[in-house]
Amino acid sequence: MVILGIDPGYAIVGYGVIDYRNNHFSTVDYGAVTTPAGINFSRRLELIYNDVLAIIEKYRPDSLSLEKLFFNTNSATAIAVAEARGVIRLAAQKCNVPAFEYTPLQVKLAVTGYGKAEKKQIMEMTRILLGLDAIPKPDDTADALAVAICHAHSSGSLIGKLNLEEKFK
Amino acid sequence: MVILGIDPGYAIVGYGVIDYRNNHFSTVDYGAVTTPAGINFSRRLELIYNDVLAIIEKYRPDSLSLEKLFFNTNSATAIAVAEARGVIRLAAQKCNVPAFEYTPLQVKLAVTGYGKAEKKQIMEMTRILLGLDAIPKPDDTADALAVAICHAHSSGSLIGKLNLEEKFK
Repeated sequence: MVILGIDPGYAIVGYGVIDYRNNHFSTVDYGAVTTPAGINFSRRLELIYNDVLAIIEKYRPDSLSLEKLFFNTNSATAIAVAEARGVIRLAAQKCNVPAFEYTPLQVKLAVTGYGKAEKKQIMEMTRILLGLDAIPKPDDTADALAVAICHAHSSGSLIGKLNLEEKFK
Repeated sequence: MVILGIDPGYAIVGYGVIDYRNNHFSTVDYGAVTTPAGINFSRRLELIYNDVLAIIEKYRPDSLSLEKLFFNTNSATAIAVAEARGVIRLAAQKCNVPAFEYTPLQVKLAVTGYGKAEKKQIMEMTRILLGLDAIPKPDDTADALAVAICHAHSSGSLIGKLNLEEKFK
């Protein structure tokens, strides 16, 4: 199962492509889509859309995994991130890739098994699970890989659950 | 100058296309793009994108005019509206239509000349300025026409200002 994890933003969009088979992870690709600050915002949205579309067309993931957004303040930044998130979801939808959302708590639990894990612990566990030499940079990329792992575990549990239910039929 | 005004949303996207020439408005088209509640959200974003793109390709507006979004609370609805706004901006950008944003106060002032105007007064002035028999329904459509008028007036002032500056060169 190929999963594209994305950490949305408008300046930096972290992404990570992982393959999850037989309880084993392999890392296909990861990085960040970036847009320059000096151009108009609609053009930045277009650059994000084009680049995410290219990543999806290249790796043909089975699913897109994103962290749920929470805004605590009336923030222009939050609106801009949500607008970028909209075009990322659109790119996936155009390729018939279903999107799944997870709360930060779900990501923590899936990656570390501990709901109070700190950011550094999540990143280190991400590195270990994916067998990487170093924590990917920037943080947005590490976050994207973590949310991809979260989807793998959630889907795994679901499959496990379905298999269990199968037995009781 | 053909202007597409849009009131973003994910269930209802109000739109209005007006033509502003020689200080005179003519109404080209208006209505609402709607998406059903029962389908997944990425698909709703895709429907909005496709329909807005079709409107832009049909009328080839010179500009897109949108109200600025303000969130006061941590609201899932606000995030969803912003995601829809992202794909609307993307549709315009794909057709090289520049987007302009106005605050609710700017729209009020442009349409009624009065910053404390109530919603009903804005709608009635929109109806009068566009020479319509009745206030368009739903409210989202009337709001979209109002923000289109706002852009016409702002551009008008800008042209006036530029002309004035020209004289002092």
